[in-house]
Amino acid sequence: MHRRLVADLIVDVPDWPTPGVTFKDITPLLASPGGFSAAVTELVSGAPGDVDLVVGTEARGFLFAAPVALALGAGFVPVRKPGKLPRETYSQSYELEYGRETLAVHTDAVPAGARVLVVDDVLATGGTVAATVDLLRRLGAEVLGVSVVLELGFLGGRQRLQQLGVDVTSLVTTD
Amino acid sequence: MHRRLVADLIVDVPDWPTPGVTFKDITPLLASPGGFSAAVTELVSGAPGDVDLVVGTEARGFLFAAPVALALGAGFVPVRKPGKLPRETYSQSYELEYGRETLAVHTDAVPAGARVLVVDDVLATGGTVAATVDLLRRLGAEVLGVSVVLELGFLGGRQRLQQLGVDVTSLVTTD
Repeated sequence: MHRRLVADLIVDVPDWPTPGVTFKDITPLLASPGGFSAAVTELVSGAPGDVDLVVGTEARGFLFAAPVALALGAGFVPVRKPGKLPRETYSQSYELEYGRETLAVHTDAVPAGARVLVVDDVLATGGTVAATVDLLRRLGAEVLGVSVVLELGFLGGRQRLQQLGVDVTSLVTTD
Repeated sequence: MHRRLVADLIVDVPDWPTPGVTFKDITPLLASPGGFSAAVTELVSGAPGDVDLVVGTEARGFLFAAPVALALGAGFVPVRKPGKLPRETYSQSYELEYGRETLAVHTDAVPAGARVLVVDDVLATGGTVAATVDLLRRLGAEVLGVSVVLELGFLGGRQRLQQLGVDVTSLVTTD
């Protein structure tokens, strides 16, 4: 019931950001109090036990990861674009469809051995999450899994992350 | 009690991003389950009644605005950097200390007459919030106020927003 509501509030925007690409717009989900709340409730109910920290990536990932951290009683750690975090960072570059992207995390953001859950809005090719997992493991974290609202199944992100030993939980999957 | 905890978890980073500037780092607050929760609880308890929508600005504003929206049973509307929102937008440019910044919002994000609360992490000069208020009023919103975790009182953001008829609520103020 919850998941159906969530799915119905994610809207296709054709030919954005480039012709031939269909963008999944989550802003109608965010604008719906019942829909947004249902998504967070489902993410929380599917979370593994004893999560110490929830990690979210800039910027849309913050919208789901922060409420999930609060609901789980866990801390929140941001993974950000370069130049945004003020103290010493580790950074990780990865390939995008067009060009490269870099993510950074504070070197003291995660105590060694901490049990960490990554939460994001959309799983596409998994490049962003894979780079995040790399960063977290460099910090000594135990990555418990990745929870996303929407999984674009045809892009193979789940398989890519499984090769890294990371399980994916998604509320809605499109083929 | 809550506010003291919040204040203690915001850390000064000297000479960042430029020499002579002291950056207020909220990542220790986010990493603390009790601290992050206390900040959201205080933002919610200070909110005006009957909020239809909570607005947050990319990216750190999302971290507080989204949980506040969920706690108030309100919808959430993102105000973002240009090129991030997939449908028709209004945009607004404003002056920063170095250069200019532009913010955008979906033209259908706010029904006319909606009662809107803006939530952000830090209020400095108020430029970002003032641009956000302009965008929201162009959409026909009633801006109820602005709630922030930390107000840098010496930068005059509160006075600037009062001139726009917008009241500021802050959990922690530094002079």
